Amino acid sequence: MRKGVYPGTFDPVHYGHIDIAIRATRLFDEVIVAVYERSQKNILFSVEKRVALLEEAVADHPRIKVAQFGGLLVDYVKQVGAFAIIRGLRVFSDFELEFRMAITNRRLAPDIEVVNLITDEKHIHISSSTVREVASLGGNVSSMVPPHVNRALKEHFARLGDDGPDSVDLISLRD
Amino acid sequence: MRKGVYPGTFDPVHYGHIDIAIRATRLFDEVIVAVYERSQKNILFSVEKRVALLEEAVADHPRIKVAQFGGLLVDYVKQVGAFAIIRGLRVFSDFELEFRMAITNRRLAPDIEVVNLITDEKHIHISSSTVREVASLGGNVSSMVPPHVNRALKEHFARLGDDGPDSVDLISLRD
Amino acid sequence: MRKGVYPGTFDPVHYGHIDIAIRATRLFDEVIVAVYERSQKNILFSVEKRVALLEEAVADHPRIKVAQFGGLLVDYVKQVGAFAIIRGLRVFSDFELEFRMAITNRRLAPDIEVVNLITDEKHIHISSSTVREVASLGGNVSSMVPPHVNRALKEHFARLGDDGPDSVDLISLRD
Amino acid sequence: MRKGVYPGTFDPVHYGHIDIAIRATRLFDEVIVAVYERSQKNILFSVEKRVALLEEAVADHPRIKVAQFGGLLVDYVKQVGAFAIIRGLRVFSDFELEFRMAITNRRLAPDIEVVNLITDEKHIHISSSTVREVASLGGNVSSMVPPHVNRALKEHFARLGDDGPDSVDLISLRD
Amino acid sequence: MRKGVYPGTFDPVHYGHIDIAIRATRLFDEVIVAVYERSQKNILFSVEKRVALLEEAVADHPRIKVAQFGGLLVDYVKQVGAFAIIRGLRVFSDFELEFRMAITNRRLAPDIEVVNLITDEKHIHISSSTVREVASLGGNVSSMVPPHVNRALKEHFARLGDDGPDSVDLISLRD
Amino acid sequence: MRKGVYPGTFDPVHYGHIDIAIRATRLFDEVIVAVYERSQKNILFSVEKRVALLEEAVADHPRIKVAQFGGLLVDYVKQVGAFAIIRGLRVFSDFELEFRMAITNRRLAPDIEVVNLITDEKHIHISSSTVREVASLGGNVSSMVPPHVNRALKEHFARLGDDGPDSVDLISLRD
Repeated sequence: MRKGVYPGTFDPVHYGHIDIAIRATRLFDEVIVAVYERSQKNILFSVEKRVALLEEAVADHPRIKVAQFGGLLVDYVKQVGAFAIIRGLRVFSDFELEFRMAITNRRLAPDIEVVNLITDEKHIHISSSTVREVASLGGNVSSMVPPHVNRALKEHFARLGDDGPDSVDLISLRD
Repeated sequence: MRKGVYPGTFDPVHYGHIDIAIRATRLFDEVIVAVYERSQKNILFSVEKRVALLEEAVADHPRIKVAQFGGLLVDYVKQVGAFAIIRGLRVFSDFELEFRMAITNRRLAPDIEVVNLITDEKHIHISSSTVREVASLGGNVSSMVPPHVNRALKEHFARLGDDGPDSVDLISLRD
Repeated sequence: MRKGVYPGTFDPVHYGHIDIAIRATRLFDEVIVAVYERSQKNILFSVEKRVALLEEAVADHPRIKVAQFGGLLVDYVKQVGAFAIIRGLRVFSDFELEFRMAITNRRLAPDIEVVNLITDEKHIHISSSTVREVASLGGNVSSMVPPHVNRALKEHFARLGDDGPDSVDLISLRD
Repeated sequence: MRKGVYPGTFDPVHYGHIDIAIRATRLFDEVIVAVYERSQKNILFSVEKRVALLEEAVADHPRIKVAQFGGLLVDYVKQVGAFAIIRGLRVFSDFELEFRMAITNRRLAPDIEVVNLITDEKHIHISSSTVREVASLGGNVSSMVPPHVNRALKEHFARLGDDGPDSVDLISLRD
Repeated sequence: MRKGVYPGTFDPVHYGHIDIAIRATRLFDEVIVAVYERSQKNILFSVEKRVALLEEAVADHPRIKVAQFGGLLVDYVKQVGAFAIIRGLRVFSDFELEFRMAITNRRLAPDIEVVNLITDEKHIHISSSTVREVASLGGNVSSMVPPHVNRALKEHFARLGDDGPDSVDLISLRD
Repeated sequence: MRKGVYPGTFDPVHYGHIDIAIRATRLFDEVIVAVYERSQKNILFSVEKRVALLEEAVADHPRIKVAQFGGLLVDYVKQVGAFAIIRGLRVFSDFELEFRMAITNRRLAPDIEVVNLITDEKHIHISSSTVREVASLGGNVSSMVPPHVNRALKEHFARLGDDGPDSVDLISLRD
């Protein structure tokens, strides 16, 4: 059985992620969407919540599993019996990081392949940080995330009050 | 009347910003330089100070207004009756962010146009973070910012003592 | 005597750094590897430790000196009687930063030349942040750093316990 | 009256071009789509045909004029009383060329502004050379060009016989 | 049976190509290396010769087939019963073209997936045009191509006499 | 004696070239500006004329020599007793080609170093092809090339008549 791991933070899952996971099922018999479990600054949802949002998002796709992991990615890939890391390429600037990841992971574990799928142009502008920023400012993210994620975002920011976004990509601090 | 909004953090305004704002007056009857008002880490000047420095910088240009704003950029653009967001493109790596901003903003508000002007090559290397870094280390930024901004930077760092720059772009941590 | 300064954070030194420093000795009679001394967030080793690791790494190369510095880079370059800043170019995304550094430094000190050497493709994927991430997760970095740096990393993370990496480049937060 | 010139080869016009021309009418009272008239290798349609296809494509937009020009672009812009050059930015790699064009044109004529609009993501993959390649191989370009351009392409390649595409972007010679 | 098509010009096949084809066999039950058959300018070897050189290069890999094709790539992929196009990503600048190819091909045939594998860093600098240039000038390409391709190149240039390379990438005309 | 070779086509030499050659004399005791002698399509001036224009341009710099060469660049570098290839980096998109050149040349001759200097931002937009295009259309290139090169261009295009530019970078065929 060909297994592939699709790793990420998924904070939260968006339509771009879901598109990549589904398309990966054509290449792999099982696709494990692996949520990195460590706490990072600027994380909105707990790892349990991120896993739950993902599970609901891919509920109709039995060959997609959702799991959480820590430690070195290549160790996790081996541990679950997969041979490939799946990555969605979004835009140019992704590539340098993907390239570095791919080469470093290959050095750490030469048997593990990195497979890149190009994000659909409909989803090219979506990233989790953009979703968080727009949602935190009350903007409409219904074209970026499934309805249940949209609800989770609204609940989160309603509960949190008006603390502002963790990033300001849509204005750009780098001026 | 054609109105355009030129948004940013402007911490502080530099010659590259001023050049873009003035050139934008050829396309728009009124250019609103809109200072993002939220507190962010690594911000040097308060929003009031940033607005004041900008107002002095464009005092000779009656069709350039300075304002502050919060919330979603496209909401602000609509609220002031503008139809366009003005952005200065500086270098390659700017483009990916600008592209994502432009597409996301268009999804959020299809009526709002994003207009890019290419920064003059004289100002190609100037960013607010470079200005802050050089000024914090006692370097001469008189070729990057107007005299009144230079004075404000000197006062700021004299009062602050030697706390070091918030970024070290000129050395590069990414080694 | 032609002197060049090779500045950086070197947290920690890796094979890519050593390769650039050695190759620079063909262009310069003396190469000063200059460790930026300020505390930055996410720094693993103290400046003294970083200098010591570098000194051991280049012990066989008498024309390479190791030093620490603070303040503006161009001021340091002048102070040690050098006329050039040496930089290793790794990948595309390096270039924009290097370009901005070079132009800004030239404005600050027109007499100082910036010399770029292209990193060997064997080392193209190595950065100090990747080394820190892999080492913090117990991965094998022996192909990236000399044995004495590998030992220092192991000691550091053994003492520190399991606090996790400061970056997660190999998973990518930017999803 | 604010006039802008949107220059290009338009061989043939596609939906990306039309989108940019229409959006430019929000910034300019008159947009002159200016077809470069010189013969170039790999040109499919004569300048007269390219102008005619454009005229039909923008027939519903009275403030968009179509014209042909030769010589230096900035001379043409001045001659028609315009003050700006309009360009559509498509993808990353466009930017370097656009940047060089913008700076060179500004040196030749400092009064002329270059205004960039970011291509809609629906049209991000369309270029005239892709249209020519797909059409020459009998592929369906109806999502890329208006019906009358599609017909002109079919007639052209029917008359021409099977001579093959002038480019093979979809396979890539650069392997 | 999962079939993938790895298309290209392969003029001539080099180690980077062979590496991608072999790695693709982990994802696909059959990998069809598909040589574009049309004559192009600057082509060194006939399509028959390119196919023969490839067949010898992958002779030990029974699941890799070599074939030639013309016409639209997606039509060929469907015709052989494959569902994916395999591409090797080499360096940054590849990506824009790959991205455009992927999106255009998806528009032409939404069922066909584009799968990207990142070229091993050992082969990152190799392209067929570099091979042709170095070989045409008598340089040693034995680290870039298998021995039988090296021999074919030597025979070709011995027979041809000293006509010079079709490209001068190693000097760069773009100065 | 440290010798470096600065190779190129120099058709014609422009201020960006001269700036790099002069700055390279700080790193090398002798800088050999090496003009590639083969005929290429789109070449304006003969190799003898290109050498003569260069010699006049650097006449005041006795440590800069001008020469012509053919064959493999690394063979020429060894033959003249140099150990380094000098390259000027202009903009982002230069880098991929430079990177490929550097790695390929290092494979062909590991002893030869590639040294990159970043082009002054004043000259960032100048390339020989832009000079040829603007001059062929009667545009003013006096800010791009020395007076004697300007005269040679005018004579060339006066004699040639109005044959049009070999490239149309300032309009862009890639629309």
